[in-house]
Amino acid sequence: MARINRQVTLAARPVGRPKESDFALVESPIPELEEGQFLIRTIYLSVDPYMRGRMNDRKSYAEPVKLGEVMVGEAVGKVEASKHPKFEVGDIVAGRIGWQEYCVTDGTEIRKVRTGGQPISTALGVLGMPGLTAYFGLLDIANPQPGETVVISGAAGAVGSTVGQIAKIKGCRVIGIAGSDEKVAYLIDELGFDAAFNYKTTDDYIKKLAELCPDGIDVYFDNVGGPLTDAVFPLINVNARVAVCGQIALYNSTELEQGPRLLWKLIEKQARMEGFLVFQFVDRFREAMADLAKWVDEGKIKYRERIDDGLENAPKIFLGLFDGVNTGKQLVRVSQE
Amino acid sequence: MARINRQVTLAARPVGRPKESDFALVESPIPELEEGQFLIRTIYLSVDPYMRGRMNDRKSYAEPVKLGEVMVGEAVGKVEASKHPKFEVGDIVAGRIGWQEYCVTDGTEIRKVRTGGQPISTALGVLGMPGLTAYFGLLDIANPQPGETVVISGAAGAVGSTVGQIAKIKGCRVIGIAGSDEKVAYLIDELGFDAAFNYKTTDDYIKKLAELCPDGIDVYFDNVGGPLTDAVFPLINVNARVAVCGQIALYNSTELEQGPRLLWKLIEKQARMEGFLVFQFVDRFREAMADLAKWVDEGKIKYRERIDDGLENAPKIFLGLFDGVNTGKQLVRVSQE
Repeated sequence: MARINRQVTLAARPVGRPKESDFALVESPIPELEEGQFLIRTIYLSVDPYMRGRMNDRKSYAEPVKLGEVMVGEAVGKVEASKHPKFEVGDIVAGRIGWQEYCVTDGTEIRKVRTGGQPISTALGVLGMPGLTAYFGLLDIANPQPGETVVISGAAGAVGSTVGQIAKIKGCRVIGIAGSDEKVAYLIDELGFDAAFNYKTTDDYIKKLAELCPDGIDVYFDNVGGPLTDAVFPLINVNARVAVCGQIALYNSTELEQGPRLLWKLIEKQARMEGFLVFQFVDRFREAMADLAKWVDEGKIKYRERIDDGLENAPKIFLGLFDGVNTGKQLVRVSQE
Repeated sequence: MARINRQVTLAARPVGRPKESDFALVESPIPELEEGQFLIRTIYLSVDPYMRGRMNDRKSYAEPVKLGEVMVGEAVGKVEASKHPKFEVGDIVAGRIGWQEYCVTDGTEIRKVRTGGQPISTALGVLGMPGLTAYFGLLDIANPQPGETVVISGAAGAVGSTVGQIAKIKGCRVIGIAGSDEKVAYLIDELGFDAAFNYKTTDDYIKKLAELCPDGIDVYFDNVGGPLTDAVFPLINVNARVAVCGQIALYNSTELEQGPRLLWKLIEKQARMEGFLVFQFVDRFREAMADLAKWVDEGKIKYRERIDDGLENAPKIFLGLFDGVNTGKQLVRVSQE
């Protein structure tokens, strides 16, 4: 009487931009629960740019997904059966569930979800890893001061949109870089950014940034890398801080890309660039989550989610991240709440 | 009865590598002292890679030298006449004297020299700006811990050789990169570096660094930039720190040089790169100088000076820095002590 699980596995190592054929949809029976295990039904699956790195056959900060293995990923789900002392049927949980309809787990890297009055999907967005990434990357790595100018690339994404709003809470002038006029309008009109521009319709990034940042750039929160980042460097101020969060412009590169050598600028401006992973701050997640929840409740942080349906569509939805189709957090609905 | 001063001025803005003809040797009368001024006879003149930046028509962290102006530079000299309440005839002083035999000054950016038992020339080297640069760049920017691996480019220069010895005092494994076999031998045999290599006779920098740094690289102190720095990046450890002190490989570039994009590595390794200028730490020079003087007196920091004669040779001696002719501090003797 084993029920059938549907899973998306890694079928081939992509070269450059992944194709849908690099993934496979497979079926397998759900194993019987052993003592200490429980069964999660996946509701929302998160797709994130970092997953591109997991598809390579090369250890980065985490192990790659093996060929034939279920794709890694955070999801939110509901406990449907339990032989675990701490998780009960009906609990809403989040964590490393993977791209699958059901997950049997002993609870490793799974947590109960508390999103207060917010939808459970926010456990994958503004009240999950993207929110925490924004929080620590901005406040700890970049440490912006009132009146400083903060520039954000990938500003309309799940992380970038939260970074900008936290920077506004901290009294900064906030400039967003995004990939459509609609996103630019969203940043300015709905999220309260001071300015933003559409890089896809802008020829001279440096000129545009110089217009929008008359006092130079004190903080740059980089989700993108490549030519946008090159354009920020000439405008940084003394003591500038660059928080390097993502480099989505480069994730599908098949060779080591070249760009202008910029280190001299760090000397001239006594500036700092620092890469980070949200997991560095795991001991302080509780503190950050309390702040984020408060700001969301107060309406100081707004968020958007784009929810597309169907586990079988997860590869296509994931690939959309590289086209920038999403404003805010991109999710896949695997089953109904 | 005005005495004649000889000065080296900037005659032309260099394109790429400077030529001797970009400088001019001029003579002018030494002005009479006014109240509050004193006259310095230059003894040793420092030439440093940073001066290349001052020859460009572009503000960097400091104003450029104007065409026809005396070249900027630190020197040590002796007070020969004084109408200043705090400086007396016979005082040994150092500071922004410039490339000239005599300097009339009101004392701005001039300090009395105290080098204890060491030669007065050390006020331009291990007990001067290069020593302070090494001290703060290593200890404050990079903050090495016992047992960590520290790699230094330009390791046999005035700054690099001091950095390496301070890192040894702090219990680190120290690897130097230098430009001749003689320098490599000096670093290992005389200064106690754990290893070093001659980049001019090494084809594969990454392979060589991997051999010499079996536990990866925790700290990189960069005086050089360019391909050497590119080779360090693949080997950095989690939480690596890169102190960006100089980029001599690029100072004579006529266009913005290209290199591999490396920011992703900062994320993967949660690593930090920080540029600095010694002047950031001016409030703590006294503390640092006490440490440096103690270490020199105890023989824990050794130093070399290369002294070439003649103000008229200063341009040629300066240009030698870009060929790496000097081991340790390069000085020009302008007059006898």
